[in-house]
Amino acid sequence: MGGGPDKEHLVIALGDPEPKHLTALLKQQFPDIDITYYQVSRAVGGFKDNKTLGSQIPDGQICLTGPSVSVMGSDQQDVALFVHLMRPEPRWSFITLLLIFPPPISSLKLIHLFSAGVDHWTDHPVVKDSNITITTSSGIHGPPITEWIIMTTLVASRHYAVEYEWQKERHWGQGEKFQLAGTDWVGKTVGIAGYGSIGRQAARVFAALGANIHAYTASPRPTPSSRKDTGYFVPGTGDPDGTIPSAWYSGTSTTSLHTFLASGLDALLVALPLTPATRHVFGAAEFDLLGSSGGSPKTKAAGAGAAAKPFLINIARGPILDQPALVDALNDGVLGGAALDVTDPEPLPKDDPLWSAKNVIITPHVSSLGKEYLDRAFDLFVTNWKRHERGEKMFNVVDRKKGY
Amino acid sequence: MGGGPDKEHLVIALGDPEPKHLTALLKQQFPDIDITYYQVSRAVGGFKDNKTLGSQIPDGQICLTGPSVSVMGSDQQDVALFVHLMRPEPRWSFITLLLIFPPPISSLKLIHLFSAGVDHWTDHPVVKDSNITITTSSGIHGPPITEWIIMTTLVASRHYAVEYEWQKERHWGQGEKFQLAGTDWVGKTVGIAGYGSIGRQAARVFAALGANIHAYTASPRPTPSSRKDTGYFVPGTGDPDGTIPSAWYSGTSTTSLHTFLASGLDALLVALPLTPATRHVFGAAEFDLLGSSGGSPKTKAAGAGAAAKPFLINIARGPILDQPALVDALNDGVLGGAALDVTDPEPLPKDDPLWSAKNVIITPHVSSLGKEYLDRAFDLFVTNWKRHERGEKMFNVVDRKKGY
Repeated sequence: MGGGPDKEHLVIALGDPEPKHLTALLKQQFPDIDITYYQVSRAVGGFKDNKTLGSQIPDGQICLTGPSVSVMGSDQQDVALFVHLMRPEPRWSFITLLLIFPPPISSLKLIHLFSAGVDHWTDHPVVKDSNITITTSSGIHGPPITEWIIMTTLVASRHYAVEYEWQKERHWGQGEKFQLAGTDWVGKTVGIAGYGSIGRQAARVFAALGANIHAYTASPRPTPSSRKDTGYFVPGTGDPDGTIPSAWYSGTSTTSLHTFLASGLDALLVALPLTPATRHVFGAAEFDLLGSSGGSPKTKAAGAGAAAKPFLINIARGPILDQPALVDALNDGVLGGAALDVTDPEPLPKDDPLWSAKNVIITPHVSSLGKEYLDRAFDLFVTNWKRHERGEKMFNVVDRKKGY
Repeated sequence: MGGGPDKEHLVIALGDPEPKHLTALLKQQFPDIDITYYQVSRAVGGFKDNKTLGSQIPDGQICLTGPSVSVMGSDQQDVALFVHLMRPEPRWSFITLLLIFPPPISSLKLIHLFSAGVDHWTDHPVVKDSNITITTSSGIHGPPITEWIIMTTLVASRHYAVEYEWQKERHWGQGEKFQLAGTDWVGKTVGIAGYGSIGRQAARVFAALGANIHAYTASPRPTPSSRKDTGYFVPGTGDPDGTIPSAWYSGTSTTSLHTFLASGLDALLVALPLTPATRHVFGAAEFDLLGSSGGSPKTKAAGAGAAAKPFLINIARGPILDQPALVDALNDGVLGGAALDVTDPEPLPKDDPLWSAKNVIITPHVSSLGKEYLDRAFDLFVTNWKRHERGEKMFNVVDRKKGY
């Protein structure tokens, strides 16, 4: 790779062809850093063929060839580390952006991940045994994931699948639809477990639809300053000052979670990080509590009849829910439905009973995707590294103890 | 019917069984008004069977029996008028709420419609030849129709139909989806033609998603006070002060409309009333203009490539668009897609080419429906009649010259 031994070196490894407007932006923002771009395959364990990668290697220090690794003039250990970094996660979310200075690669100063979570990496030696700073792309996912949340929630509450099937049959089903008509979200209550960038943007849109928001956070937020969003978020979105929720709940105990779940929720959005502490934190007891106390007072009082059972939304990680318990809660009508962009495991096996649970919407972990992903991930990196250069705290530095 | 000849009499005729909590509310709010409730059928030209209706008739002055009419002790002309009022519109939107005082029925003081528009009634003698005050339920539709707008727009921009079909096949299509990923609405521009209760609530939610709003109104709104919503709207929704749009356009000429359409729109929401002046106001020239200037500067500048063609949303009335021109604009890629809850005619015939136009979402005029409909329509009536009793101006009085 070019540059002297003391020059900072940024290695970008992504599944896409080089986004030239973004690498040009990086060169402009950081003229003193060497930049190398690798396109890697998103397929499980796979890398692009020799031709694709070989042609992109400037100095031949590191060469990724097919699924195997060739070492050309570089330290074996460094290459192994690099390859490890590239391969812990078999799907798109392994996409990484690495900042190295100076070579060799084992002197890594920063690993910036393009995913919001670090949970897939927790057993990796870099997380377990090193002190390399790791930052995530948490904060860029608010807008697309919120669109997914709002879309699937409305698809469920407005019975869109029925209308979609009518259209395929060229059927004007107006009269029948009257019976199916759902309720809207004015005056309903949406509970948001995890009030970060995604939870805040979802709160913003649910509130615009007319809903009340109950927020649940690990640490208490009793003061206005404690309610502010101190993380990265896409400008013009979210709830920067934390003024949207009408009620705040907090804690990490079962009791505190249950207090939140009993607050009369028409929908529950799970937007927590997956950590050992949050694994299976929502199980049969939690679904029962949500289902029995769910439906806000307003819903219950309305003339429309009995309150609909609460709707569950999970855009975080599948294992936060006890999935067999969720299947039961759906099939038994304890919950009114669920929208799940994440499952346990992923991909969800063909014969998993979750596929056929009542009123479930399942999508294959796509809620964060969109054409803006790369631009925002690069913008977050630029913002972060400029903060670092100014001696300020970077956003999204992974706390190895907390696990996120 | 009970009460003396001078007592006010409210006749409610709806397609639903009597909503007793609402009629009880009316009796409580207006103890001096006699109230009669009729359940009528939503089927074309049909009324509920004798038994259903007969049992609800208190004094037998008016009797609707099956599809024919029996007159029992009432003035033939009054009954004919009443039946006329009940039957101009063959589907659910003919649902009416009539306030009569005192009998006979030809002394009607107010006809309150449960629909937002009066366009289906324009040829009716009551509209053409009488001076009876007519009020609509405009204003109650903001929340459900906005949910429909947001849902269908996101279903289109996020390619939800693909994910829906994957789920039916238990297919985890993550990798493929990456290619299909759409754009989100942060920084996009949504044009809203007709900035009433629906347009304002849609603006509120699109703005929460991160979009800029361009409003288009018939009369200019140069001052803060001119931008306020003076109509009825569901509390806690909409844009009461008109502060959301970043740009305002106005006029009733083709030139003024074209100026608005050329303002760089990623989506256009049609929320105008149907009048002789707005019939086919959007035709081939307008779609071409929208398509060629569409895509906000931000979209065009983004690295994601060429701007997507604008998306058209119609929740107003089908004939506002030149429908064959719309089919061409969709099939030729002039527009990127459309979501239509209204068509011309309705029901849309099975062999209409609109059904198979590219990237079109069609639903059978259901966007306003929901369990809250009746409650809000009654609330609007109560609000209105209390204003009338206090000598204030009622909301939504139909202007026969404007046609809405």
